[in-house]
Amino acid sequence: MLLDDLRRDLPADRLVTDPDVASGYVHDEAEWAPYGKPVVVVRPRTAEEVQTTVRACIAHETPLVTRGAGTGLSGGANAVDGCVVLSTELMTAVKEIDESERLAVVEPGVVNDDLRAACAEHGLWYPPDPASAPWSTIGGNVATNAGGLCCVKYGVTRDYVLGMQVVTGTGELVRLGRRTAKGVAGYDLAGLMVGSEGTLGVVTEVTVKLRPLREPEHTVAGYFSSIVDAGRAVAAVADAGITPSALELVDRHCLAAVDAWKNMGLSVEADVVLLGRTDAPGAAGELEAERMLACFEEGGATWAARSTDQEEADALFSARRLAYPALERLGPLLTEDVCVPKAAVPEMLARIEAAAQRHDITIANIAHAGDGNLHPLLSTPEGDDEARTRAQEAFHDIIRDALELGGTVTGEHGVGLLKRPGLGEELDPEVVAMHHAVKAALDPHGILNPGKVIPD
Amino acid sequence: MLLDDLRRDLPADRLVTDPDVASGYVHDEAEWAPYGKPVVVVRPRTAEEVQTTVRACIAHETPLVTRGAGTGLSGGANAVDGCVVLSTELMTAVKEIDESERLAVVEPGVVNDDLRAACAEHGLWYPPDPASAPWSTIGGNVATNAGGLCCVKYGVTRDYVLGMQVVTGTGELVRLGRRTAKGVAGYDLAGLMVGSEGTLGVVTEVTVKLRPLREPEHTVAGYFSSIVDAGRAVAAVADAGITPSALELVDRHCLAAVDAWKNMGLSVEADVVLLGRTDAPGAAGELEAERMLACFEEGGATWAARSTDQEEADALFSARRLAYPALERLGPLLTEDVCVPKAAVPEMLARIEAAAQRHDITIANIAHAGDGNLHPLLSTPEGDDEARTRAQEAFHDIIRDALELGGTVTGEHGVGLLKRPGLGEELDPEVVAMHHAVKAALDPHGILNPGKVIPD
Repeated sequence: MLLDDLRRDLPADRLVTDPDVASGYVHDEAEWAPYGKPVVVVRPRTAEEVQTTVRACIAHETPLVTRGAGTGLSGGANAVDGCVVLSTELMTAVKEIDESERLAVVEPGVVNDDLRAACAEHGLWYPPDPASAPWSTIGGNVATNAGGLCCVKYGVTRDYVLGMQVVTGTGELVRLGRRTAKGVAGYDLAGLMVGSEGTLGVVTEVTVKLRPLREPEHTVAGYFSSIVDAGRAVAAVADAGITPSALELVDRHCLAAVDAWKNMGLSVEADVVLLGRTDAPGAAGELEAERMLACFEEGGATWAARSTDQEEADALFSARRLAYPALERLGPLLTEDVCVPKAAVPEMLARIEAAAQRHDITIANIAHAGDGNLHPLLSTPEGDDEARTRAQEAFHDIIRDALELGGTVTGEHGVGLLKRPGLGEELDPEVVAMHHAVKAALDPHGILNPGKVIPD
Repeated sequence: MLLDDLRRDLPADRLVTDPDVASGYVHDEAEWAPYGKPVVVVRPRTAEEVQTTVRACIAHETPLVTRGAGTGLSGGANAVDGCVVLSTELMTAVKEIDESERLAVVEPGVVNDDLRAACAEHGLWYPPDPASAPWSTIGGNVATNAGGLCCVKYGVTRDYVLGMQVVTGTGELVRLGRRTAKGVAGYDLAGLMVGSEGTLGVVTEVTVKLRPLREPEHTVAGYFSSIVDAGRAVAAVADAGITPSALELVDRHCLAAVDAWKNMGLSVEADVVLLGRTDAPGAAGELEAERMLACFEEGGATWAARSTDQEEADALFSARRLAYPALERLGPLLTEDVCVPKAAVPEMLARIEAAAQRHDITIANIAHAGDGNLHPLLSTPEGDDEARTRAQEAFHDIIRDALELGGTVTGEHGVGLLKRPGLGEELDPEVVAMHHAVKAALDPHGILNPGKVIPD
């Protein structure tokens, strides 16, 4: 029996079999995605314990689903019936921060914000900043290739992963990638692991690249009376050759939800808020902030200003970060994550609005506007199954619209379960076949997070 | 017969069978690597013609070796006996430059500098700048994940490839990756292709990310009387939190060779030259250049100055670019490409010096010092076979030293043939097995550049 083997080979406190406790490990935040019941939750403390777990799964032909903090939004970490759930929550060591090489070596369970804080003590900065940064783990960020606010200028998780230690689908503990600034020694298997959502290996350690801490950012806020005007401002910023360090859009549904929760008074002021930041150093930053302000005004802002007050600026950005939990308070949320060419953002926002009307549901929008990465949030009343069905129809319409406009079904949340059908529409059948071939090559026993990512 | 099929399916001018002409396509610039004799050189004009060629190779179980401009330094494009060589030289269209999305779509045969020039007309910039940029092609750059001078700040080819069109090992013409700023739709197969040296597919089109043109750079030059002093200056730059846009080291052997050719008078002035650049905007750039100058002086420069004269600055950097051809004039060169942690650069340079003495050969050094990426150039007199043997021994010693210091056998030139044994030393056997598995999954007929990259 699998459980007997695990009990023999691992300390007792690593195993959770109590169904009540285990039920906290069965799905991520994509509530609408299905999930099953694991036979056991394993919480290893070392890479060797991860290896032991993987080998037991191979020996007993048992699926293994790895999870970080469970903040995913696509169902990628959802359990399947009879599986082992491997939680990285006890692997939280920041093993090394090397100032001269500008890199950190961390265990997968380290929380994103904790790594950021540890780096700051050394004058260094780990850029990828998903909105889940206070809770989500580096291992989860790597598994989904997480993005965030600053990736419009600094790139996504993939751009910061130098190397990793992985337990492979054959149960080997190996090192992929490198510690050096450059390296082309063989296939980029470390890169292949990033974004593979636990289907090709289990990450036990990550080496990430760091940057020097940056100068304080300048914030520009703009209020707009329509999505279209805000979209025009976003285009103006791109056309002006500005590279903002963040460019976020928050629509009236989100503003109202944040106000209803935190009483910030935002929704009285604007239908759409655009938040821009620049971190160009010194006078160049001052200048870029002024130019961004001019772009906001050019787009038709009803009010726009540079925030001279850091507290005020942080409050505006916290409204952005609060949008998701604020909407969650109002009922079940289905979270979209399409990314379209920047020029197609206004058209995509118009189509989202049309889908909301057509299916008679509420769709709020937060967006990494500077990247064309939109997060329509489909909100339905608690217990209203018909609205749920209509929301799912709207979800698929939005995916189809994004593909029609040259976009992708997932910008940063990953495929998991929710985007599998969409991925099948996005990729050529021959490319799906390549996915199956790579999966079979690296997970020959088919135990690693089966049923996720790759369409049938 | 393969040739009959190709003659039937391709226009006559696409095929080169004349041995004299074909002999220009049988190896890259790694002269010391073995190469064979192809049955035909195919020069397709379209992706469909590439597909036709790949399918013919599959049907006739014939190896296919793809080449760009042949400027590679590892033998990755070297022909094997009886193979088809596919040259991308006629696929030179810059198909699209999109200013608002900041991307370009190009055919693989576009020369790096030509793409750079085309982008500049739109106020945009393609950063990867291998020293071969005037000749090497984007397809070749993608195949080797080429680096260059500015990657110390801006990253390598991999960081700029958004998507591509590829003919797969099964003869399908597919699209991988994306055009959007972000995207995590399935495995990063486009990333996997980058650096795979034609062993996993034939690239027929590349979509690259662009940046806005930058401000003019500030140049700082320093003369040093020893490699160790120069190494100390490099470490000082890193410790000061400076991110230079280039930081290049040229040693006395290179300076002498350049002087002997171009009479620039450099070798009288210095034993080692360090060239730093910064492109921070405005006053921040002025400040960073001053700080870099202070670091050079701290390291013990015998003379150091900011170059106020653009022409003088360009001359210094052209001396860097001329080092390789200048040394080539003096006899056959074996080019190394190790990359070590930055802190290990002085120790690595000392070991290279020791290897030169031990094996009684001349080793010149150019280095992307800011990345720890060193290019020892092992020079031997024309026709001196004993010196050649000694140079090959030194080559392997240097690889072993780099691995001992936590480095990699190839920072940017790729594995090809010359680094296959070294790769076998660098990677865990289990990781080599993963390479074989991925190769077999994506090239099931084993026709794509067989015998390259992966150790047996």
